[in-house]
Order: sequence, then structure tokens, then C-alpha cells
Amino acid sequence: MSTNINSTLKTTPRDGLSRRESRQAAIDYIHNLNNESYPNSEKIFIEGEIHPIKVAMRQIHQDDTLVGDSEDAPIFEKNEPIPVYDASGPYTDPNQKIDVHRGLSSLRETWISARDDVEALTNVSSQFAQSRLNDDSLDELRFKHLPKTLRAKKGHCVSQMHYARKGIITPEMEYIAIRENIGRARVKSKALHFQHAGHSFGANLQQQISPEFVREEVAAGRAIIPANINHPELEPMIIGRNFLIKVNANIGNSSVSSSIEEEVEKLVWSTLWGGDTVMDLSTGRNIHETREWIIRNSPVPIGTVPIYQALEKVNGVVEDLSWTIFRDTLIEQAEQGVDYFTIHAGVLLRFVPLTAKRLTGIVSRGGSIMAKWCLTYHKESFIYVHFREICELCQQYDVSLSLGDGLRPGSIADANDEAQFAELEILGELTNVAWEYDVQVMIEGPGHVPMQMIKENMDKQLTECFDAPFYTLGPLTTDVSPGYDHITSAIGAAQIGWYGCAMLCYVTPKEHLGLPNKDDVKIGLITYKLAAHAGDLAKGHPGAQIRDNALSKARFEFRWNDQFNLGLDPVTAREYHDQTLPKESGKVAHFCSMCGPKFCSMKITQDVRDFSAKLDSGEISVRLLDETIKITAREGMAAKAKEFNQSGAQIYQPVTKVGSA
Amino acid sequence: MSTNINSTLKTTPRDGLSRRESRQAAIDYIHNLNNESYPNSEKIFIEGEIHPIKVAMRQIHQDDTLVGDSEDAPIFEKNEPIPVYDASGPYTDPNQKIDVHRGLSSLRETWISARDDVEALTNVSSQFAQSRLNDDSLDELRFKHLPKTLRAKKGHCVSQMHYARKGIITPEMEYIAIRENIGRARVKSKALHFQHAGHSFGANLQQQISPEFVREEVAAGRAIIPANINHPELEPMIIGRNFLIKVNANIGNSSVSSSIEEEVEKLVWSTLWGGDTVMDLSTGRNIHETREWIIRNSPVPIGTVPIYQALEKVNGVVEDLSWTIFRDTLIEQAEQGVDYFTIHAGVLLRFVPLTAKRLTGIVSRGGSIMAKWCLTYHKESFIYVHFREICELCQQYDVSLSLGDGLRPGSIADANDEAQFAELEILGELTNVAWEYDVQVMIEGPGHVPMQMIKENMDKQLTECFDAPFYTLGPLTTDVSPGYDHITSAIGAAQIGWYGCAMLCYVTPKEHLGLPNKDDVKIGLITYKLAAHAGDLAKGHPGAQIRDNALSKARFEFRWNDQFNLGLDPVTAREYHDQTLPKESGKVAHFCSMCGPKFCSMKITQDVRDFSAKLDSGEISVRLLDETIKITAREGMAAKAKEFNQSGAQIYQPVTKVGSA
Repeated sequence: MSTNINSTLKTTPRDGLSRRESRQAAIDYIHNLNNESYPNSEKIFIEGEIHPIKVAMRQIHQDDTLVGDSEDAPIFEKNEPIPVYDASGPYTDPNQKIDVHRGLSSLRETWISARDDVEALTNVSSQFAQSRLNDDSLDELRFKHLPKTLRAKKGHCVSQMHYARKGIITPEMEYIAIRENIGRARVKSKALHFQHAGHSFGANLQQQISPEFVREEVAAGRAIIPANINHPELEPMIIGRNFLIKVNANIGNSSVSSSIEEEVEKLVWSTLWGGDTVMDLSTGRNIHETREWIIRNSPVPIGTVPIYQALEKVNGVVEDLSWTIFRDTLIEQAEQGVDYFTIHAGVLLRFVPLTAKRLTGIVSRGGSIMAKWCLTYHKESFIYVHFREICELCQQYDVSLSLGDGLRPGSIADANDEAQFAELEILGELTNVAWEYDVQVMIEGPGHVPMQMIKENMDKQLTECFDAPFYTLGPLTTDVSPGYDHITSAIGAAQIGWYGCAMLCYVTPKEHLGLPNKDDVKIGLITYKLAAHAGDLAKGHPGAQIRDNALSKARFEFRWNDQFNLGLDPVTAREYHDQTLPKESGKVAHFCSMCGPKFCSMKITQDVRDFSAKLDSGEISVRLLDETIKITAREGMAAKAKEFNQSGAQIYQPVTKVGSA
Repeated sequence: MSTNINSTLKTTPRDGLSRRESRQAAIDYIHNLNNESYPNSEKIFIEGEIHPIKVAMRQIHQDDTLVGDSEDAPIFEKNEPIPVYDASGPYTDPNQKIDVHRGLSSLRETWISARDDVEALTNVSSQFAQSRLNDDSLDELRFKHLPKTLRAKKGHCVSQMHYARKGIITPEMEYIAIRENIGRARVKSKALHFQHAGHSFGANLQQQISPEFVREEVAAGRAIIPANINHPELEPMIIGRNFLIKVNANIGNSSVSSSIEEEVEKLVWSTLWGGDTVMDLSTGRNIHETREWIIRNSPVPIGTVPIYQALEKVNGVVEDLSWTIFRDTLIEQAEQGVDYFTIHAGVLLRFVPLTAKRLTGIVSRGGSIMAKWCLTYHKESFIYVHFREICELCQQYDVSLSLGDGLRPGSIADANDEAQFAELEILGELTNVAWEYDVQVMIEGPGHVPMQMIKENMDKQLTECFDAPFYTLGPLTTDVSPGYDHITSAIGAAQIGWYGCAMLCYVTPKEHLGLPNKDDVKIGLITYKLAAHAGDLAKGHPGAQIRDNALSKARFEFRWNDQFNLGLDPVTAREYHDQTLPKESGKVAHFCSMCGPKFCSMKITQDVRDFSAKLDSGEISVRLLDETIKITAREGMAAKAKEFNQSGAQIYQPVTKVGSA
């Protein structure tokens, strides 16, 4: 545990590097992951009560606060460590060795096998996957330590929804219950006291998210646990509106730019900065092999849009897409361990002309592929027509479905229009079909929506899709600021999160303009984590405010290091502070650069507090509720607060003991 | 008019520069302002109908769109130029010569003198100001071409509210009516057509903001026009909830860092990036002279917090503050031309102990100064007690009052508490008092407020303060992300703007951490401009959506240059695009780096559109409303869209004619 910034959390600028150099930088990064955590943080594990599981969390330690003097010695008040939700998995666990060539350890392997409903396959079931495996020329690219491929035993369904409906609390569910209970973890260690401030925020910590509650939510379809049996490395997480709002990060190469190492780097980077799931949207060559590396090294669920790869297989010719190719792609990806598929099953032929009069037509890549296919063959898409077969397939691996909004609006002008809502109704119908198969479902949403139209999206989604979780891209609340769409969309994302959206797909500063680099991925993630947190606060998630309160208390007490470390991005916070007050002494300064040492409003408040304490204790008395003071009154009341003046003199006493914990 | 990025809009990194070098860079910048506008933009002037005024706007030109072919020649559709609100004043007017040593030209000089209610003073009225003027050692610092100081003739009130209440439509009011009517300007040139897309967004352009409407709003106190008679250089603007949401930028040196040139540079920089008003929050030495330079060079209203300077005058010793010193400071600043004063008049003695139990006490600098003073002398502050005298003073110069929220919450934990709302009620009382004197008033608001508590702030402010305009700092919607508080607060700012907040005080990425540099000022401004615009869209400001629609259309048609230029920050948008597709050919590419040239969803939509056109014309027919397609249906309908397939082949036809307009 160190107060320094872990090198794994740093970026070095790569502008101007060649493709080869960029790739080398990524290789160096993923081979030098050092398992250090965030500054002054510690990986902790909380044990399950039903299952023998250990749930990972991060705990941020804090300095003590000076609260007074007793004879010669200063009196310090301890600031309890703050536990926070941690998506980074083994990458911040000092007891695990990271080797991206071997992948992460299999947390869920025994949980899956103990259910006795899966079997290991001798060969993969996808023709395409088999042909890639048989191709020696790909050995260089291939992930070397592929695990055995699992599939449900004949006649079995292995989805978390299936278990939930049978009344079974799986280890995954208990893991999630503990993980979501940031308040409960807190209570277990010790209640958070604000003795000095006279505060206690313990009230909302009483509520608990129990394993049984998790089970109920999954059984009802209000939440999903994306967890393919072929991705045992993942740490279970849940997507549902009665849980913490989650954030997805998109990565993936395109035909314009790519390398496997850079994608693995972005995956690790995403989990370090709080990505709850990662979607691999690769469209270039070697998608299959890239995905192996990503899944084997991912502690978070991986989502894909299988039609992208299917299209690659037919050389980008939409007309050549078929159910045969698509089905093989689904099986290929399910057996690799993809946790959720985005499929644009709701793009019906009759909806396509509804988009013709739009300002920006169809902007979903998947949606436009399906629209083009439907128009070409003048019939409903193979995804819609074969939807039941897709469900049969998903239930054998526990792949969750993310029903894509192929007709989402691509501009403010097109928001909430007939095409968008027509598709949403179909997604509701399909949700019911998937639930017949115990397949977990979430629904994707827009996109570009002005603020006053956001709530209608959320309300309509819940109604039409029977409370299935909503997963939106933003929405962007204006179209006028390319380069800042992480912000235009964070405004909408925070709102829809508050209204009940379960997961937010991040948007980076490069949206609409280019491919995100590592810095963009981080900025997108931090922006969305703060939007999600703002939503969690607003909807009253138990314990969400603990971190805000701890950070605010640190800020108020000029515990600069704690202020940095409790934030979502300690690296940037410290860097910004360094720009004005670079010396280490600035980190314990009892003032900030805004007002300087001569005057500080926060210091004055401490005087106010001392004054009020004396008031309460009867040491001084004032007619505080005297209502006779009027705007025209010129005479002041008597000045009696001599003691206040005396106590106000000590402005520069040190307040923080550094390096404790 | 150029498509290139104006050097005035660029920043060069100054990290690592010494104080002297930083200052020199600022000097170089302000001496080399080149009056160029934004890329492909033009300064236009719209003439008044009541008064002989010319209202400045910016017009963004666009490339044409290829819509078809006629024999050998391509057919282009013209994209009309888009007028946008322009806060940059003469700095982007090629017909004005900029000399920061002489200041800007006096747009309002004749308007003010024509009212025949002001007189020029022989000497300034403030003792402090006079002593500075008499001090030869300050000649080096002093602004050389100070104008004559004006004051209302005895017995006169010169506030815009006073004229409004007398039924007079001033040139300022007409200027504002034209300026706010971004829709009307549009209609005047030509309605915005989306012929190709079959769109017309003309409906909400019919609404107009008339000069009489402006007068009514000001007379009712629902809006203010901050416009000191000693600041004739400013271009009138309005702050009220029935107008465009405005954004304020804070600048100002502190005792930790400073130079006059750097502050003038930040002022110019702020107006270029859309700052509607600028607050000079300087607390260091030479505040008086710094302010002269700022006001003389500012096309936007300047606000201050006079207590900061008063405190400097008593060497930071709060106990030494007095009405005499404060009054002299108000007169000094009013005669320099400050357009609005933030005064913390609502911090009453009895409210101070209400803050003692807070997590973060009093965080407003002005609020804590007043609280400390009240406690020290155990009486109400001189600002509260002498409020009527302050109003008498303001009405002689038309200084607007911004009633500061000295007890605003400094953390999520303290939001909407008793102290905050108690002060707000007093601000309402004071609003009524100010209105007795025809003094214009706005009310400052928080701060740190979680989303679910924002609306209560807005509603309560309107009720308690009789619809006076609200001016908030953010609010920040979470405390967990130092380094990103421009975003945590933009989320709250957009919302409160939608709910009716009239002006948003920006927050930069350095909030809570350090002093903003030039880049931070820009990021803070763009972030707040987009939040304000999102609010304008949501509340339905006439014509607000024109810019979104134009940008979306440009995006959809791959007019990359137009997409950059129509955005709030063309420099950054272009730079981001360059990072993936640096060549100029990328700017006319009919694809983007996200999908690459092989496949593009936007291109497919054009195919959909062609298909639908044929459908409409009867060239092809389909049973589009056929409801017989069910989830279980396996048989497709007949494929008849041969023509669609043919038309779908032409993927790479050029679509944009570059460099037109």
C-alpha cells in the first residue's frame, strides 16, 4: 500500500508514435502490470455466508484529523478507511501474478462445475472457430492457453435466471449482494463517524442488498448477471435498476487501426478506471483471436455485436449475410465466453421507411446492416425470424441478450420518434420470448435525446419491456459540441440513471470524430463513473453518499492526499494541485491556491464551529433568534464575543498527521 | 473569412514556463489579436428598427450538399449560413482595430448621453481610487486612456429597470431583442430548409423576442441588463429565464499567482469562447489597476465581489472591515464601470450557527468573511444594515446587484439545508428593497446539490425571490471526482438551466485543486456553453435547435469541415479528427474512422432513403404494414427490390463540394 501513484495507472503521451511504436508501448504496458492498487488503497476480501466465496473490494485509507490538544500532545481523530466498489479484479491484487499470456485465474470454475449441468466439448462447435484453430499461420496471434470449452448438458439451461427462478441463490448472486453493499461493508468494519462535525450518516446504511434480493431481481428479469460459463475468470456483477448504476466501455480495433496488444491494454485500462463491462467492437481482421486475448484477461463481462464479425466473414457485403453465418458466429463467440450479445432483432422491414424522413436516418451500425439486409431481400431479418433459436443457444452458455436499438435517434431532431418507439415495442415482445427460455435480457437505448424528452424514454422502456434493465448510450443532450460529447452525454446519462437506467455506455471525447486512444478511454470512463455516481446518489442507493461525505470532509480539513485518493481519478487530481502548489508541503498546507495562505473561508468556518460550540455549552450567550433586526435597523447589538476573537487568532496550526492509516 | 483556425483561438502549452515567461506569453497574445473570426465564419450586423443600432452576430458558412446528377453536372443544394449568438465583440470584427492600451470603442456612449441624465465628474468620488490616481509609482501599471467618470445627475436613476418601468425601450433593450432572436435572424436571411431530408424546422422560428418583451421582463424584475454607465464598451446582454441561458467565467489573480496581462488575456479568451459575463475575482495587489484594464477591454459585463478588495485594503484582517471602507470600495468600482456587484447581504448573525453542524461549514469566501465579521462584533453586517444606501449608490451608475449565497452548501451532505434556505428568504426580502430603488437584482445559488434536490432550489428561489433571475455555480451533483468538477457541475447546471436558471457560473477542471490556466478557462466555458445550450433546447428557446440540426445534417452528409465549424470548439473537433485521419482528404471522406471506408451506417441510410422515395413514388411496392409477420414465421416475403440493389452499389460518390460559400 503506497501513497505514490502506481505506474500502471499512468499514461505517457503517444502522439506522433508510429503504428509499430504504439503497439510496442502497449506490449510493454501489459507485460509490466505490477498489481499495485490505487494510492493508499488496499485490496480487501469479504467472505460469503452462504458460499465459500471472497468478494474483492478496494479500501481507501485516510490520514487522521487533528481535533485538539491535550497538554503537550495533539489529539487525533481517526478517519476510517472507505471501501469502494472495485471492477479491476486481479490487476490490483498483490497476491496474484499477472501473465497476459496465461490469462486470469478462474474464480468461477468450481462454482460452475459444482452445478453439474455442463460438459466439456472435445471440439468447438463453430465451423469458423474450428477453421481458425486448424490454421497454423495464426499460431503467432493465438492465445496459447485456451481453456476447455463448456456447454450445458443436453436439456439443461445454465442461465442465472434459470437458477433464480428455481429459487437457487448461486455463488454469483451472493458475490453480487456483498459487492453491491458498499454500505454494509462499511458497517461491518465500523460506522462512519463525523464526530468532529457532529455528523452521522449511518441511517441509510441499515438497508441491505441481500443475496435473496439479488435472486428475486434476476428471477423477475429486472436485473441480469452476464456470466458465460466459458468466462469463469469474471467477477460477477449485476445490471439492474435497483443496484449501482454500471458503466460500459467500448474498445475494439477497426479496419483503420488495430493490434491485439493495444486492445488488451485498453481492456486492462478500462477495468482499472472502473469499467463494469467492456464491449469488444472490433471490425478488423483477427477479431476471433483478439477476442480470445480479451476474454481470457477480463475480470468483467465482455459484450459483442456478433453481426460485425459476421459481416467481416462475408467481406462486408451485407447481401451475403445469412442465418447460417450468423448462427455460427453466435456459437463461436458463446464458446469463447462472450457474456452478452447485442443483436438488432427489432429492426423490422416495416419500420425501415419510418427512418427515411429523419434528419440523420439510421446511425446504429448494426441497425443499418439489418435495415439494408431487410430491404435487399424484402423480408424480415434472420435475427428476428430465428430469435427462438438464438434463445435456445444462449441458454446453453448463459449468454445474456442485449436487444440493440438499431433505430435509435442519431440527432436531437430525431429523438423519441415513431421509428425508435416502434422498435422498442418489438424489443418488449422479444424480451418475453427470451424469458420463456430463461435467457437474461437487457434493452439498449439512445443516443441523442434533449433533456425534456429523456424521462419518456425511461418510462416507455420500463412499460414496453416489462422492467427489463435499460442500457443507454448517453444520451447526448445536444449536438453542438463535437469533441465534448462525453460531457453532452454525461448530462443525459446521469439523468436517465437517476430515472432508472441500469447501465450507461460511455462516450469518449472522440465520439463522432475519431478512434479513442488510451487517454480518451480513461476520460470517457471517469466521466461516466461520475455520472453513474450522481445517478446513484439521486436514486438513493444505500451507502452511495459515504464516499462523497468522506471526500468532502477531507476537503474541508485540508487533507489534500485524502481528497485526491478518495476521488475517481487520484492521478489527475494530484497533477492539477501540483500545477499551482507543486511542493510536497502544499499537500499538507492548510489553505488552497484559490485564496492563498492569507485568507481562507474553510478556516473561518472552523472558527464559526468553535464559536457555536461555546454557544451550545453556555460559555457565551447571544440573542440569536432575535427577530428585531430589520433592514432599516442601524444599531448593532453589543459585541461580546471576546473569546471568539481569541480563538480566531490561531490560523496556521497544522491539522493533518501525514502518512497514517 | 477563412477555413483555417485563427491563431487567436489557439493555445500553446505553457507548462513549465517561469512566471516571467508566462507573463510575456500573455503580453504577446494580447498584442497580436488579429480580429479574425472562427473558421468559415463572418461577423454580421443586424440593424435596429427603433434605434439606429447594429447588433453583432456571427454567421457560420457551410459547404453545399450534392443531391443528385443532371446529365453531366452534379446538382448541389445550398446550405444556408447559420447565425449564432456572439459574445466576442470587437475581437472578431475585422473592421475594428484592437489596441488593449486604448481599450474598446464605446458602443453605448451616445445612447447614454442621449438620455441626458448623467454628468461627467471632475474627480472620482472614491478616496481610495483618488489616492491610486495620485500615486505616480503606479503609472507603469495604470491604464493610460481612462475615460471620464459618469454619474447620474442628482435625483436621477439611470438603471435599465427604471427606464423599463417608465415604459421606455432603450437601445440596450432593442439590441438584446435582436441578439436573442437567433431564430428571427435566420428567418430574415432565409428559412432553414432540409429539403433533401424532407425536413423543415421553421415552426418555432415564428416566436419572436420583441423589444417590448425585453422591456416587460426587465420592468418586472424577471430579467436584468447589467450595464454600468461607466462601461459603455459593453454589448448589451440580458440575464433572465425567458432568454438564452448565460454563462459566466471567473478570472482574477490571487496572492499566489498574478499579472495584469494574464488577466486581460483571460478576459479576451473568455469572450472568444462564449463567456457572457466575466467576474474579476482578483485578490492580489493592484486589483484597482487590473480592473481598469479588464473593464476597458471588455465587451461583456464585468462582475466583482467588492468585499474581496475591501479585505485587501485592511490587509486581510476581517475585524478591520467597516461600512466606510466597503462603501468607498463600492463607489470606486461603480465609477470604474463594474456592471454587477456580488454582495453577501443575506448572511445574518442568527444564521451563522446553523452552519456549525454542517459537514463543510461555510465555503463561500464572501460568506465566511461576513460570518466572521458578524461573530466578531456580534451584530448584523454593514452590508445588510446599509443595504438601502447600497441601492441608492447602485441606481446612480446602474450597477446590478447579485445577491450572494454566502451560506451555500459546500458538499452534497449540506445541500438544501436550513442555513441555505434561511439566507435565500432574506435575499428575497432584499430583492424587494432593491426594486424600490429600481436597482436590478439577481440571486446567486449553489453549489453542491444532488440531482434529486436541484428542482427544489429553483422552485424555492422563484417563490422566495419573486421571479428575480437565478445565477448558480453548477451545482455539482457529486463530490467524488476532483479534477472533473466541470463535468459533475455541468450535469447540475444543464438541469437547473432547464428548470429556469438564468445564468450559470462556470466551473473549471481545476475547481477545488488549483488556479485555472488558459486551457482550463476554455474547457470550463465550452462545458458550460454546452450545458446552457442543452438547457435552452429543453426549455424550448425559439431557434435554439437550428444549430443542432445544422450540425447533425453536416455530420450525416459527411461535411466534416462544417461539422467542426458549427460546433462550439472547432479547434478541438478538427484536432481530434486529425489524430485518426490527418490528411485533408479525410475532411471530405465519405466515411469516418469508426467504421472505416468499407462499411458505413450513414451511407446505408442514404440507401434506405432512396428506397423509400421509390416506395413513395410507387416505383416499387411492398406490404409494409403487413402485420402477419410473427416471431415464429419462417417464410420470408418475396424479394423484389432489384432497383434498391442497383442503387446500393454506388458507395463512394463524392458528396461535398468543398470551399463553397
